[in-house]
Amino acid sequence: MLGLVKIKRIAILGAGLLGGSIMKTAKRLAVAETCCTWSRSEKTRERCRHCNFIDTVCESPEEAVADADVVVACVPVDRIVPLLSQVAGTVKKGALVTDVGSTKAAICKDAKTSLPRELRFVGSHPMAGIERNGIDEARDDLFENRLALVTPLPDTAPDIVDDAKSFWQSLGMRTHSLSPAEHDKIVAHVSHLPQAVAVALAGTLATQPLQWRDFGAGGMRDTTRIAAGTPEVWQAIFEENRKEVLPALDTYLKLFGELRDALADNNSQKLATILKLASDWRSKLK
Amino acid sequence: MLGLVKIKRIAILGAGLLGGSIMKTAKRLAVAETCCTWSRSEKTRERCRHCNFIDTVCESPEEAVADADVVVACVPVDRIVPLLSQVAGTVKKGALVTDVGSTKAAICKDAKTSLPRELRFVGSHPMAGIERNGIDEARDDLFENRLALVTPLPDTAPDIVDDAKSFWQSLGMRTHSLSPAEHDKIVAHVSHLPQAVAVALAGTLATQPLQWRDFGAGGMRDTTRIAAGTPEVWQAIFEENRKEVLPALDTYLKLFGELRDALADNNSQKLATILKLASDWRSKLK
Repeated sequence: MLGLVKIKRIAILGAGLLGGSIMKTAKRLAVAETCCTWSRSEKTRERCRHCNFIDTVCESPEEAVADADVVVACVPVDRIVPLLSQVAGTVKKGALVTDVGSTKAAICKDAKTSLPRELRFVGSHPMAGIERNGIDEARDDLFENRLALVTPLPDTAPDIVDDAKSFWQSLGMRTHSLSPAEHDKIVAHVSHLPQAVAVALAGTLATQPLQWRDFGAGGMRDTTRIAAGTPEVWQAIFEENRKEVLPALDTYLKLFGELRDALADNNSQKLATILKLASDWRSKLK
Repeated sequence: MLGLVKIKRIAILGAGLLGGSIMKTAKRLAVAETCCTWSRSEKTRERCRHCNFIDTVCESPEEAVADADVVVACVPVDRIVPLLSQVAGTVKKGALVTDVGSTKAAICKDAKTSLPRELRFVGSHPMAGIERNGIDEARDDLFENRLALVTPLPDTAPDIVDDAKSFWQSLGMRTHSLSPAEHDKIVAHVSHLPQAVAVALAGTLATQPLQWRDFGAGGMRDTTRIAAGTPEVWQAIFEENRKEVLPALDTYLKLFGELRDALADNNSQKLATILKLASDWRSKLK
């Protein structure tokens, strides 16, 4: 893979759940000889020194990317391109450079403007995650059979896309490539909208008497699960993808309003239609 | 229990997921000597004849309740009181009569009006369920450690409440009693609102290109899971509890609108406040 027989060194910039899980999985599946990482926080770097799936914990991002065959930026979406710009001069010629950001249009556009032309960058979004965060939550099965989206621009060389796909596949993922704009529109609906829905539900319940919480069963738990996600992470995602998220929220608001009005107006037929539309769609979900 | 040493016969009216699971659990835990059931549908009765946890499948509800120590109405919420009225004259003196309806105020009010004073009825709502339905889905662990709410009116005799609690406890449930009105207000928020939220989300996604569905990860799956529930069942619940559901929907709509506007207006502080409110609440959920 990567036009190389074997990856010698993976550099992970930002040692959170995703970065940590990449290293842990890479070790389990012997994808690379060496996993090295850097984190902005000394506290996180100290934790990383105790992780047996990390070979080297670096004091600077430049030190981490030096001599790496694959560089993955695993920092919040608004910091990805600034960080990659900072290390671009140190990245080895021919190395694959990618990221794990949940939004792609702004990142890929900024990357095209800010990064040197010879840097082999393509955006990625491995669609895996849990509502917890941090290197201590890293799992070696987080990516198993999940989907990694790779988002080339029209002028991204096909071999870079192939390398990124191969990399994610080597971690056990399925892959699909699409444009950054298409990516952002789709994830606004299938990922960011569900997050907003869960957040508004959990927020609504948070303002009710505390003991009501104990009356909730599996439905309440499941429907609010992802609301536990880190506020800062989601704020950055929502704001970065505002252009696509807002129309998705409005489409949802419209249907929710129709459901509400059908109930208020005693319009049983309309209510039944909405319930059936939702039930049919969800029942067919594999 | 039930002031009796042992229940000899349980009658389950309506053989769906809940009714079936009561019988299956009662058999596993040896709660009763005999489980008998009736269903309006001959097709369901035929299926019941092949269930090894059902002793007798009856052709009429009267036949089922005759000589039963416990009668549980497991039919849709709008059919519970009419059905209990129909069989009231046949129920054995001293038997416990209850139901599993997800709304309680209307049922308990109608029961008070329609049922003979000597019938030992109290409303129940075992808070357990899955998004599938039917006798074939019956499980003997559905109720384990889940909460059964028992909803007496002010003039319900305490021994009836105690008997109902003992019955649900014998199936492995925790119990709590509260007024029907309080019940309906709470479940409007912790059960019916999450259902409406999941339905509107699944319905919104149903109107997007079909292939987008494959891009959804665990968040989309969990947040929409309960939307697969049977439309007719939920329509009856929403309509029966309209008075409490509407204000709950409106409280949610208000917060969702605030989240939307915070994003549209680039009001980062407001967005952060909502995300944190939701995350804190959900993180503390046991």
